[in-house]
Amino acid sequence: MVTTVTSLDNPTVKYIRALGKRRERQKERAFVVEGVRLLGEALNAGATPRMVLIARELLGEGEAQDRLLIRLTELREGVGRHMRLLEVTPQVLRGVSETETPQGIVATFAFPERQEPAAGTPLIAVADGVRDPGNLGTMLRTALGAGATAFYTTPATVDLYNPKVVRAAMGAHFRLALRSNVGWEALDAALDGCDAVWGAEADGETVYSAADWSAPAALIVGNEDRGLSPEGRARCTGTLAIPLGGGLESLNVAIASAIVLFEAARQRRERAG
Amino acid sequence: MVTTVTSLDNPTVKYIRALGKRRERQKERAFVVEGVRLLGEALNAGATPRMVLIARELLGEGEAQDRLLIRLTELREGVGRHMRLLEVTPQVLRGVSETETPQGIVATFAFPERQEPAAGTPLIAVADGVRDPGNLGTMLRTALGAGATAFYTTPATVDLYNPKVVRAAMGAHFRLALRSNVGWEALDAALDGCDAVWGAEADGETVYSAADWSAPAALIVGNEDRGLSPEGRARCTGTLAIPLGGGLESLNVAIASAIVLFEAARQRRERAG
Repeated sequence: MVTTVTSLDNPTVKYIRALGKRRERQKERAFVVEGVRLLGEALNAGATPRMVLIARELLGEGEAQDRLLIRLTELREGVGRHMRLLEVTPQVLRGVSETETPQGIVATFAFPERQEPAAGTPLIAVADGVRDPGNLGTMLRTALGAGATAFYTTPATVDLYNPKVVRAAMGAHFRLALRSNVGWEALDAALDGCDAVWGAEADGETVYSAADWSAPAALIVGNEDRGLSPEGRARCTGTLAIPLGGGLESLNVAIASAIVLFEAARQRRERAG
Repeated sequence: MVTTVTSLDNPTVKYIRALGKRRERQKERAFVVEGVRLLGEALNAGATPRMVLIARELLGEGEAQDRLLIRLTELREGVGRHMRLLEVTPQVLRGVSETETPQGIVATFAFPERQEPAAGTPLIAVADGVRDPGNLGTMLRTALGAGATAFYTTPATVDLYNPKVVRAAMGAHFRLALRSNVGWEALDAALDGCDAVWGAEADGETVYSAADWSAPAALIVGNEDRGLSPEGRARCTGTLAIPLGGGLESLNVAIASAIVLFEAARQRRERAG
């Protein structure tokens, strides 16, 4: 951390900028995490960045900043010895950042995808065509909080590593067993261990709280407008309804999946206790 | 609907533009609703606009547009005979619109505030300092779906009639018993009929699903960062916790209130059935 990079033509800077595109992220199996809080969440979860760009003037000073810099330095002396740490000018950091007011720190991480779901009775969430990055990120965070054991996205879904998804998920990427862009054949293997595969539909048949969530189960959530894909629907053993008052026809997909997954958590908690 | 308004200096156009400011909305007790779908939701709920601006070129053609125009014409022949309907140029409509790609129709409505909550066992939602308009709008829509009987906001909360709140609520403003900017003394009268007043806190004491929601109850939701205000906290008979896995410390306020309010709905449904 001696010289300061001043040019957007620096190869590392160009590499990180390129990760703004889904295609490049897929090719490199890497994505960008921005900001003091989000990067702190990633480190808390045990992840190690590949590259870190810091613009001191934008980063400013404070306890959170100090703590983060100390932890990055410690990492370099251990598991993160191959991590590249670069000081850059505010202009370069703004060129790399996807946010309007960058916090002065941007890092890249390898996709934190694990083949193995978490331990415990399976509670699998599948996003099948969800389009809005805020919705997908919120679903990820919510699934983690509800104790989901794995989270999958199909190729028709917004990229799990889109910067807006990453921001909305607030670190959940690093704590949940994830696989993105999974084909239906591969998903079948994961769903095979579930007693029930529920589809979230506006006109579903089973009231979500009448379903038995104590056994291994999966929830497939579809596109905001079109709902489940034909492939997703074909895998469902039943469809769920959330009874709504006030003449409402539907809920936002992130809200709907929160309600269902936390009902699953409630049933499991109460039956265990 | 003969002449087309071409100037942003037209008094009606200026009036609607001024409603972009919270202060003006408060003074006029009126707000703006944009777009075919949202305006359709308002009419479905029985509301009558005061003014409607239409830019035919932006509105385009289609079944939804036709249906909306027919309903507005019918309204004028009945309860909406005082409604002002103006054709404007696309430029004027863009000047009034708060969205990036306006749909060609903008209307104003009187605040749909009712003093009387809906019938049934009270389930009151109070937003006490919620700051993000998307969160507040989503909370409103979710409260409606969960069967809340009234929704109140305190003065520290983002304006209930902010255009982003209106968009996220998708018509819920016209279907829920609402009061915005309510002082704590006035709220006390509403909360007086509740057996329990629950505060949503990150470190709450009672697991939300262990609370009894079959009796009259209220839920107070605080600011995204600071939580409940001292005034709000003082009114709570207890605080709620949502057990979270994966090391999560909190959920988004809109997600948290959805989980709690739908648990209330579930208990009421199951005890009634």
